Amino acid sequence: MTSPVRFADGALHLLDQTRLPAEERWLECTTPDEVADAIRRLAVRGAPAIGVAAAYGLALGMRMADRDEPPLERFERDADLLAGTRPTAVNLRWAIERARLAAEEHASAGPEAVAGALEVVADTIAHEQLHADRRMADLGAGLLGEGDRVLTHCNTGALATGGAGTAGGVIARAWEWGRLAHVWVDETRPLLQGARLTAWELARAGIPFRLVTDASVGALMSRGLVDSVIVGADRIARNGDVANKIGTYTVAVLASRHEVPFYVAAPLSTIDAATATGDEIAIEERDPSEVTRLADRPIAPEGTPAANFAFDVTPAELVAAIVTERGVLRPPYGESIGRALAT
Amino acid sequence: MTSPVRFADGALHLLDQTRLPAEERWLECTTPDEVADAIRRLAVRGAPAIGVAAAYGLALGMRMADRDEPPLERFERDADLLAGTRPTAVNLRWAIERARLAAEEHASAGPEAVAGALEVVADTIAHEQLHADRRMADLGAGLLGEGDRVLTHCNTGALATGGAGTAGGVIARAWEWGRLAHVWVDETRPLLQGARLTAWELARAGIPFRLVTDASVGALMSRGLVDSVIVGADRIARNGDVANKIGTYTVAVLASRHEVPFYVAAPLSTIDAATATGDEIAIEERDPSEVTRLADRPIAPEGTPAANFAFDVTPAELVAAIVTERGVLRPPYGESIGRALAT
Repeated sequence: MTSPVRFADGALHLLDQTRLPAEERWLECTTPDEVADAIRRLAVRGAPAIGVAAAYGLALGMRMADRDEPPLERFERDADLLAGTRPTAVNLRWAIERARLAAEEHASAGPEAVAGALEVVADTIAHEQLHADRRMADLGAGLLGEGDRVLTHCNTGALATGGAGTAGGVIARAWEWGRLAHVWVDETRPLLQGARLTAWELARAGIPFRLVTDASVGALMSRGLVDSVIVGADRIARNGDVANKIGTYTVAVLASRHEVPFYVAAPLSTIDAATATGDEIAIEERDPSEVTRLADRPIAPEGTPAANFAFDVTPAELVAAIVTERGVLRPPYGESIGRALAT
Repeated sequence: MTSPVRFADGALHLLDQTRLPAEERWLECTTPDEVADAIRRLAVRGAPAIGVAAAYGLALGMRMADRDEPPLERFERDADLLAGTRPTAVNLRWAIERARLAAEEHASAGPEAVAGALEVVADTIAHEQLHADRRMADLGAGLLGEGDRVLTHCNTGALATGGAGTAGGVIARAWEWGRLAHVWVDETRPLLQGARLTAWELARAGIPFRLVTDASVGALMSRGLVDSVIVGADRIARNGDVANKIGTYTVAVLASRHEVPFYVAAPLSTIDAATATGDEIAIEERDPSEVTRLADRPIAPEGTPAANFAFDVTPAELVAAIVTERGVLRPPYGESIGRALAT
């Protein structure tokens, strides 16, 4: 499919994921504010895709700089704005870091030169992501068993990376290779990325799947209907703890009880060497109305208080392997992650 | 509150639970077909409340019998209809069984006498349920710790029993006694009995609570935010395995991992001596559109296939205690259940 994150004619074009599957509407962002807003309200989402979008956002900001504005001041203002949109996904900050190096390198040549350099960085990140996705797809598909009924949580296809997807890419490759029986998609409340986005992607790819509520995963496993689980990640700590969409931890605990292998697919940019363990990962809390309303419809009594953690942390001990573009990492993750980051 | 299941003026009045919390609309059922329909589409729900409603449904059917129709034929026709509405909850069949004894005893006196006897049986079941609920509330509240943050799944208040509630009654009593800090209510997809009904009941009772998605329970427990769990049951096997609303098993597995006590509150009528273990319990599969749509709104792409198991089975090993009106049962349940049923 066309990437949901495209830069053309001086604008960042985003497939508005809040509208799917009802409507395929594209947003056109020409300012960092518009990009930040799109990230904040999840029009673009998925840790890798957010990183790509933020990088283009910085390029757009630099294009707007006054001739006499020091490029690095402009850069930091936009970087602050974009970094503040979502606290958990680390790819966002990683992309900003890469962009900062380029900005510093070209700063003396003025904003126009920096803007050009930032666009190159953003293109490069998008490009590398696509290649990383393809490599993860090959490596991850090799982990799945013949005839597996694989379960996934949230959305990790092309929509989530702008490339070929992380866990979603693995699933697509395994299907190509004839290894999958079908996919269990859990709906992923509150924002239904499974029901809305993963179902949409799998249907378009002709991959057989069945949707279930999040609360059904235990029943599926206790009936022996799940052979493997693969999910993406928003941040992975140095010890292998995985922050990912709320509900991931629950799936991992169930998988462990039923001896179903639980895999994570994520590019190295999702691994944060500065985070020692999952305890250090800030967990975004989002608006309670995401829980008490569905689309614009209230589903709970007026005034119902709700808690809305956007992510949870799955401890490394529950993760059978982490699929990266630089190989399949196995426990102990302290060592395997260290080696992967060093090469 | 007024019972959601009331018999008056020759009609069964049911608070339509599919309309809550938006609207408090009462249904008036005057035939077994109307009662069966209300049970099937969950206008009345909760294992004990279904038992009470079915008993009144049999009385209504007998009132419609022709003078020359053998009462027991009429009875069996209506009993078949009502028993077929929901396969998992055992209180339904238990109530029909009790009604059958009364029908057989009075059959020779003709349909009118049988109808009167069936009404008495239904009144008695409703009455006993209220007393059982009150006893469970006292016993269960004693299990909860001072300042507990208790989590519950689905709806088990007065709406679910027509009396004072099972687990919901325990929660209300513990609050009265000043033992609870607050209640975590999970939304209970697909039909949102937590978000719609439990939130409605707790708000009316002034009991503090917070709503979360089902997928958040793992995160709450891993952050140490849950001190105890109490749920109801649709059927309990002789060995203590518990069939309850889909998602219960997932909560129990998480509670076990985090050493949070997991309690079940259910009247003895929910224990099925004829079911040796949870493996024998038929699990109702409901319409997939309950998963792919919310109210009348599609939430997944057109044509999305879905699986919709209405219940799951929690193995006895995960249950810390079963609160019944005849005492708190503890493992090994084979023995404690045997003793409770024998007395």
